[in-house]
Amino acid sequence: MSTPTPRPLVEIFFDFASPYSYLAATQIEAVAARAGGEVRWRPMVLGAVFKATGNDMPARVAAKAAHMVRDLDRWAKHYRVPFRMSSHWPMPTVAAERVCLVADEAGLAGPFALATFAAVWAEDRDINQTAELVRLAEAVGLDGPKALERAQAQEIKDRLRANTDEAVRRGVFGAPAMFVGDELFWGNDRLHFVEEALAAAPRP
Amino acid sequence: MSTPTPRPLVEIFFDFASPYSYLAATQIEAVAARAGGEVRWRPMVLGAVFKATGNDMPARVAAKAAHMVRDLDRWAKHYRVPFRMSSHWPMPTVAAERVCLVADEAGLAGPFALATFAAVWAEDRDINQTAELVRLAEAVGLDGPKALERAQAQEIKDRLRANTDEAVRRGVFGAPAMFVGDELFWGNDRLHFVEEALAAAPRP
Repeated sequence: MSTPTPRPLVEIFFDFASPYSYLAATQIEAVAARAGGEVRWRPMVLGAVFKATGNDMPARVAAKAAHMVRDLDRWAKHYRVPFRMSSHWPMPTVAAERVCLVADEAGLAGPFALATFAAVWAEDRDINQTAELVRLAEAVGLDGPKALERAQAQEIKDRLRANTDEAVRRGVFGAPAMFVGDELFWGNDRLHFVEEALAAAPRP
Repeated sequence: MSTPTPRPLVEIFFDFASPYSYLAATQIEAVAARAGGEVRWRPMVLGAVFKATGNDMPARVAAKAAHMVRDLDRWAKHYRVPFRMSSHWPMPTVAAERVCLVADEAGLAGPFALATFAAVWAEDRDINQTAELVRLAEAVGLDGPKALERAQAQEIKDRLRANTDEAVRRGVFGAPAMFVGDELFWGNDRLHFVEEALAAAPRP
């Protein structure tokens, strides 16, 4: 058996409450594949990032919010992915992000993130229902109740906080935030730059 | 002689102080040409738009400003246009925008806007020097001193204010803002959507 060749990483810091993170999430695995890299999925708490950086939700400005609704639809059509504005938005996402970190321990952060993003931004589900999180965990092959129990571990809570702190320390102020090495890219609308940087990244 | 066939319009609302407006300006004529449309150049006062909508300069958040500097360089390389951060920024732009409206009376708003954007964002010139505005007016074929005198007319002042008010009324909250019909597109990073909309627009 041969060890797989190591590939350069793109890290994506995201929050399930961010619709532009959803849009980026639907594309990032394909971007990485085209560039010969791989994705590291890193949930963070966007509200804490806003607080730490003095940034704010774009939707706080009414005219910006109106444009955003149209813009999200345009991107979804452009990518040919389903999208509908969540009736639960803005919602707390800490519980789901902790389960994502549990999924990560089994190498399933990506599938869990994609399933959860779809639940929020395509299916209008409420990811703060325990039953919903159990369903999502099981959809990617985890033991649902065990995953939710593990999500309560202090280690997992600390890991989510550490992701968030690290994001802020590395210059993140919004979501999605992507890194290739130390290069920060903000927004699904910068995925073409991410792809270029990843294709040019040194092979580890 | 035949009258030229009327073509659908893309309106671009911009402020010379906005580097993303510069980036969009370098591309918009090519976008319009590919889509069989034409550009209407509409200077506005971005500070007044921010005030009216409760929006703010992205650079007000330090982490966002740091990302912006990198991001502007990436776009300039992507478009293969020169760019350097202006040492005069943020600068007042009302005087230059009034001259742009004078140029517009001679059908020269586009060339004047492009020359002025280049002066600010490629050549680091100070467009609040009268001599600089005279030079820019003359570069597009106007009588410099006469253009600057005309720029003081109440009609021109009112027109700049009317552009700004109209932008706010139509949902603009930042720059550049592009319209195809009533559809608003914000940012140079949405030019692909502008091109699609313009190509699909009904021929007048």
